[in-house]
Amino acid sequence: MINFPKRMTVIAPHPDDEVLGAGGTIARYADEGVEISVLIVSGHLPPIYPPEAFEITRSEAEKSLKILGVSRWEFLKIPATMVHQIPVADLNGKIFNFVRETNPDVVLIPFPDRHIDHRTIFDASVVACRPVNDQAPKIVLAYETLSETHWNVPGIEPSFVPEFFVDISKYMDKKQTALNCYLSQVKSIESRSVDACMALARFRGSQNGCSYAEAFKVVRIVV
Amino acid sequence: MINFPKRMTVIAPHPDDEVLGAGGTIARYADEGVEISVLIVSGHLPPIYPPEAFEITRSEAEKSLKILGVSRWEFLKIPATMVHQIPVADLNGKIFNFVRETNPDVVLIPFPDRHIDHRTIFDASVVACRPVNDQAPKIVLAYETLSETHWNVPGIEPSFVPEFFVDISKYMDKKQTALNCYLSQVKSIESRSVDACMALARFRGSQNGCSYAEAFKVVRIVV
Amino acid sequence: MINFPKRMTVIAPHPDDEVLGAGGTIARYADEGVEISVLIVSGHLPPIYPPEAFEITRSEAEKSLKILGVSRWEFLKIPATMVHQIPVADLNGKIFNFVRETNPDVVLIPFPDRHIDHRTIFDASVVACRPVNDQAPKIVLAYETLSETHWNVPGIEPSFVPEFFVDISKYMDKKQTALNCYLSQVKSIESRSVDACMALARFRGSQNGCSYAEAFKVVRIVV
Amino acid sequence: MINFPKRMTVIAPHPDDEVLGAGGTIARYADEGVEISVLIVSGHLPPIYPPEAFEITRSEAEKSLKILGVSRWEFLKIPATMVHQIPVADLNGKIFNFVRETNPDVVLIPFPDRHIDHRTIFDASVVACRPVNDQAPKIVLAYETLSETHWNVPGIEPSFVPEFFVDISKYMDKKQTALNCYLSQVKSIESRSVDACMALARFRGSQNGCSYAEAFKVVRIVV
Amino acid sequence: MINFPKRMTVIAPHPDDEVLGAGGTIARYADEGVEISVLIVSGHLPPIYPPEAFEITRSEAEKSLKILGVSRWEFLKIPATMVHQIPVADLNGKIFNFVRETNPDVVLIPFPDRHIDHRTIFDASVVACRPVNDQAPKIVLAYETLSETHWNVPGIEPSFVPEFFVDISKYMDKKQTALNCYLSQVKSIESRSVDACMALARFRGSQNGCSYAEAFKVVRIVV
Amino acid sequence: MINFPKRMTVIAPHPDDEVLGAGGTIARYADEGVEISVLIVSGHLPPIYPPEAFEITRSEAEKSLKILGVSRWEFLKIPATMVHQIPVADLNGKIFNFVRETNPDVVLIPFPDRHIDHRTIFDASVVACRPVNDQAPKIVLAYETLSETHWNVPGIEPSFVPEFFVDISKYMDKKQTALNCYLSQVKSIESRSVDACMALARFRGSQNGCSYAEAFKVVRIVV
Repeated sequence: MINFPKRMTVIAPHPDDEVLGAGGTIARYADEGVEISVLIVSGHLPPIYPPEAFEITRSEAEKSLKILGVSRWEFLKIPATMVHQIPVADLNGKIFNFVRETNPDVVLIPFPDRHIDHRTIFDASVVACRPVNDQAPKIVLAYETLSETHWNVPGIEPSFVPEFFVDISKYMDKKQTALNCYLSQVKSIESRSVDACMALARFRGSQNGCSYAEAFKVVRIVV
Repeated sequence: MINFPKRMTVIAPHPDDEVLGAGGTIARYADEGVEISVLIVSGHLPPIYPPEAFEITRSEAEKSLKILGVSRWEFLKIPATMVHQIPVADLNGKIFNFVRETNPDVVLIPFPDRHIDHRTIFDASVVACRPVNDQAPKIVLAYETLSETHWNVPGIEPSFVPEFFVDISKYMDKKQTALNCYLSQVKSIESRSVDACMALARFRGSQNGCSYAEAFKVVRIVV
Repeated sequence: MINFPKRMTVIAPHPDDEVLGAGGTIARYADEGVEISVLIVSGHLPPIYPPEAFEITRSEAEKSLKILGVSRWEFLKIPATMVHQIPVADLNGKIFNFVRETNPDVVLIPFPDRHIDHRTIFDASVVACRPVNDQAPKIVLAYETLSETHWNVPGIEPSFVPEFFVDISKYMDKKQTALNCYLSQVKSIESRSVDACMALARFRGSQNGCSYAEAFKVVRIVV
Repeated sequence: MINFPKRMTVIAPHPDDEVLGAGGTIARYADEGVEISVLIVSGHLPPIYPPEAFEITRSEAEKSLKILGVSRWEFLKIPATMVHQIPVADLNGKIFNFVRETNPDVVLIPFPDRHIDHRTIFDASVVACRPVNDQAPKIVLAYETLSETHWNVPGIEPSFVPEFFVDISKYMDKKQTALNCYLSQVKSIESRSVDACMALARFRGSQNGCSYAEAFKVVRIVV
Repeated sequence: MINFPKRMTVIAPHPDDEVLGAGGTIARYADEGVEISVLIVSGHLPPIYPPEAFEITRSEAEKSLKILGVSRWEFLKIPATMVHQIPVADLNGKIFNFVRETNPDVVLIPFPDRHIDHRTIFDASVVACRPVNDQAPKIVLAYETLSETHWNVPGIEPSFVPEFFVDISKYMDKKQTALNCYLSQVKSIESRSVDACMALARFRGSQNGCSYAEAFKVVRIVV
Repeated sequence: MINFPKRMTVIAPHPDDEVLGAGGTIARYADEGVEISVLIVSGHLPPIYPPEAFEITRSEAEKSLKILGVSRWEFLKIPATMVHQIPVADLNGKIFNFVRETNPDVVLIPFPDRHIDHRTIFDASVVACRPVNDQAPKIVLAYETLSETHWNVPGIEPSFVPEFFVDISKYMDKKQTALNCYLSQVKSIESRSVDACMALARFRGSQNGCSYAEAFKVVRIVV
């Protein structure tokens, strides 16, 4: 129904979101010949974090992205929790440009959740992917980020209830290895640990009859 | 991301629902080599309708299905408005068997709306497509039925808010021709007229940057 | 149940939103003797747009508003995409003052959608219409804006599912003529073209048994 | 915007629902010259209730309906909790016929809630009011029934969140008098007592700046 | 805020639902001195299943219930998929009687999901727990059933989005042992396997900062 | 199921929100020995209000808080309508610190409604209560604020549909007395009058079988 994609672009609020939400999917499609690009919008930067904090996660990220088979990445370097202070047209423009340059068939974006940067970047990403002309991406999906996504308040804020599943059974090892690159992140809180990630992938798999899966909410598919 | 499908199965509550909801999609994919099967569950039958009523719509349906390029169809002949009186296991079983025999990659099912038969058949179809083993269909989509679907009460009953669009710009003619076969149906009420169908397809097209489209709500996609 | 209104006020984020969402309704009620006022909050202004851009749409707007029979209008001239940077109390106050001065029975406001200005102005308009005293407007309705409104993400952002319909069958010509005044806008993107507008109006008509209609989401009606 | 109505029809699942949900509205519009008709679909009948039970509530109902100024009423006499066992086409037909005969501008129907009869009758009433031709009622509103409506489960079943309010400040006395006719009902459970009704009306009034109000969810308004 | 409970009652549609949804919670509270009662409403019975099928699951269930520490249980023995054919007042009455006899502070009921029996029993259970007098249970929670609950269609049917979590870290062993008693059930489909259950419990734990948890949707809590 | 709490913390956007939403609950638990702390985030301050305005409500608040039995309170003194202009990390940090210092078992937070400060503080409060470690509060509930909460637009913004009720029948007097301290607030608009508060409490009581209640939406409960 949908032709096999040639290029996939992932928008990540902070380094590690791309692995948490779509690491297995990235690994699988890279392996199947899809060209993958990742834009990391924000990061641990001053004034809230010391300058070294960003460099640590950047180097962790680069190790992880290589393992997953990502061919291109970029860091916008907007300080964490301050993304919504960037003028809307600027942020939209930066994400739009990355999408236009990488020219993807599929775009993966963060779900708008507990973390304000995720909400801001979700909004900018959906604007950047508006179907206003033929170059607009045909498939746009939102991924979940363990902990933040599941801290939205039921009945008040949107809940992540996925309808699109990618079988990553053969790529769980790679996802785990990539996650383990983020020493500074995945150990910091219990609810984002590697074994919690594996459990989530197993649960998502059980929802659709396979061993491990990553789950997505469909933003728009045009065929 | 998803391989091109080989077989598509459409579950229609009554003759004409398959054209109203997915006529362009059927015509397009039949044309592109997909094998299409249609199951028509209910119909204008006694005790509410005279016996001839069913034969008229059956012959209209067969003309229409041929135009669209459907290769196989079947009528379950359950009287309209009485589908929910069939034992649940029976109805589920009949739909499940049709799905298993036609072995589709994609299943199109009705949206649960104002018409009680649509709700009953939606439910049975989702049960029939549960992802319990490898033969379960990988793509399940719900289509809209002009008038009935848009008479659900906002905020009380589910609203049809689609995220999956099929570009049918080149197949609008076929959809119209197929609709016109249903003389007994499309003329009976203003809100299901051919020009209302065209307007809806144009509106759905405008939502995603193409001329005419059919819109679907994703039940489940597994890749 | 509700007495026929004497005055109607429309809050438009940008010039053309008032026609896209409510052009037929404005034309009809103006024709039936209702006094119509329109507040246009934002516009194509520096720094994002060149100064001429605003003057072009302003002159297009004035031509269009006259055709529809609007008797009073005002431009707040806040630059597009920057409305949310105005202090909340200021924006609320400006909209509140326009509502108080025009003293309407009915207020039409934008639906909060893909465009951030629409969301900000929706919020300010609902605050301005709070039922805190006898002068508060008795009927407040939100209109849809072709393209932007239908780019909200299903299941994550609010969906426009209308329950209030205005029969504009006799006023489609005027709506079209008014739309055509906005040469700079309606041609720029396919999904906001005049024929997409007509298709939407025909679809909304088919939902409630008339030829053409405009659809609204009820914010509040007090009788 | 909407012309003042001539005729209003109320569909009540059981005797007393019409007063609980819309007693003040009925009294007000009867007083203002609107012709009011009430259809009471079900009642306390064998096999669950003894035959006398129905006669008691019928006589209570008639007293109450007269106080409110209702000019016509009818009892369908379907046993309580068994309404969903009536063939769908029969029930729809009976309600449709009452609506067609009374030819209303406004129809008030029950909200689908904890009581299965309310859900069944809501569904049949919406079918009976489909906008398929010019005689279809232009305003259809759903009313709340103290206790049952507020026992729907949040986040699982539809919640009654009204957007249409009728100021009944001058008719609270009549609503109370009418309620007091239902000795057999309003005293039976605490959560449907007369003072709980008054509190609800006061709360609904405070939502929109008047003293007492009845609240409705808009099913459809066409003007 | 809430006093520690003395008695807890669990309503299970079929044998194994009580362990899948609340096995750890039952084990923990039984261990902490709460008296637990379980009502199993339906089962694998003729005409769909052979008579032996029920006896197998009954004996599995009894072994499992003893392991969890349940002190009282009852089988209503209504054939699976046919619960909705029981007269509503009968089914409500049977569940109500069990609740009244066991006199619980807390009632756990199934979430209304893909399985029609779950929906019917959810509805009857909520009716049975209506807060009409002082004996009504103060805490009513709905549990999830792996596979069925997660096959509800997003955006069309209610989604299980829990807000109440029970830490079962110390009782995972018992939950597993109890699950393993159901040889005939947990092996039959991949999506209800023991390791999928463990993964779900780990995911639910990660949502609220503990190792393993069971999750519930609050129906009503009164303190 | 849940042990009786030792400490309860209330986050109030403006002085009087804590009484409107949770005055009876505070009075009851203070009386039962729970240590209550209140953080009042914003207030009537320049530039929108004259400096005296804040002092008036502060002294009203202190009188009211003493009546309710609150043992500790703090004013953050952020000007009303400007809370969203504080850097996100600052606001989150201030609320987080108050929560950590008061170390509560239960936290009561405002529902995100018509008032922009309520939405901003809701968001910051949920972040401050994330279950990232053992000190995170186990029970987080959102309260309603008469008028503001009920001015959210149905179907567009979240609706307050509570599932958690606190019986405050014995504490209505205290709630009323505390409310009456806020001379400057409760008289200013009809929809926030003392008798509207009583009506709401009576209605909430009738929902769950007691005389007067306060209602809450569960954000998260972990036991």
